[in-house]
Amino acid sequence: MIGRLNHVAIAVPDLEAAMAQYRDALGADVGAPQDEPDHGVTVVFIELPNTKIELLYPLGEGSPIQGFLDKNPSGGIHHVCYEVEDILAARDHLRDQGARVLGTGEPKIGAHGKPVLFLHPKDFNGCLVELEQV
Amino acid sequence: MIGRLNHVAIAVPDLEAAMAQYRDALGADVGAPQDEPDHGVTVVFIELPNTKIELLYPLGEGSPIQGFLDKNPSGGIHHVCYEVEDILAARDHLRDQGARVLGTGEPKIGAHGKPVLFLHPKDFNGCLVELEQV
Repeated sequence: MIGRLNHVAIAVPDLEAAMAQYRDALGADVGAPQDEPDHGVTVVFIELPNTKIELLYPLGEGSPIQGFLDKNPSGGIHHVCYEVEDILAARDHLRDQGARVLGTGEPKIGAHGKPVLFLHPKDFNGCLVELEQV
Repeated sequence: MIGRLNHVAIAVPDLEAAMAQYRDALGADVGAPQDEPDHGVTVVFIELPNTKIELLYPLGEGSPIQGFLDKNPSGGIHHVCYEVEDILAARDHLRDQGARVLGTGEPKIGAHGKPVLFLHPKDFNGCLVELEQV
């Protein structure tokens, strides 16, 4: 069912410093910050030859990643995103298998403009999983 | 400098359960467990079209992931691995940029039989980074 790894998301406490680490120390192709007010985050995409790293930084009040940064002040890997062809079929199959879908269970439009859902980390080894329909 | 994302490693407290989640709930191509006594882990590779997920489970006494699982009993994302062409050149460049290389700084032979190094998570947003020469 799952296809490509679309991205790995890393929550960071200092966006400029994180961009500099990836650009200067790791020599990666680091994009420009994009504010995503609907998601409460500023994102920076790092393009690797086969996938992307997504740096996440809180934007505005009540950002969904603020709690994660409060618990992990240095930052950390926040989630992985797998691609699926049909997000509703994937959701229904996952529920049949006993996995919990976060929120209402209706896909939202994610940072890439495509439908996304998140799965409960307790059902996936403490790892927050995003599914994105491509 | 960094090339492909070679894998994302997820430490899991129950290897059979984790394999079943990825095989049955996520419909992925899950390999057979491989014991890596030199590394103190049993690994399972999940092949995605563009990269791999590596499930990590402690093997023997003093496994390097036991401390992580003690702190994260449900499991969690343990590290990301980026490919490099020349691991010694990468190490020297990273040190010049102020990043700390774990251990002696001499590459070890990793689970894929290739030279690897780990970078200090505090220098990379709380994210443990493995470099693998390919």
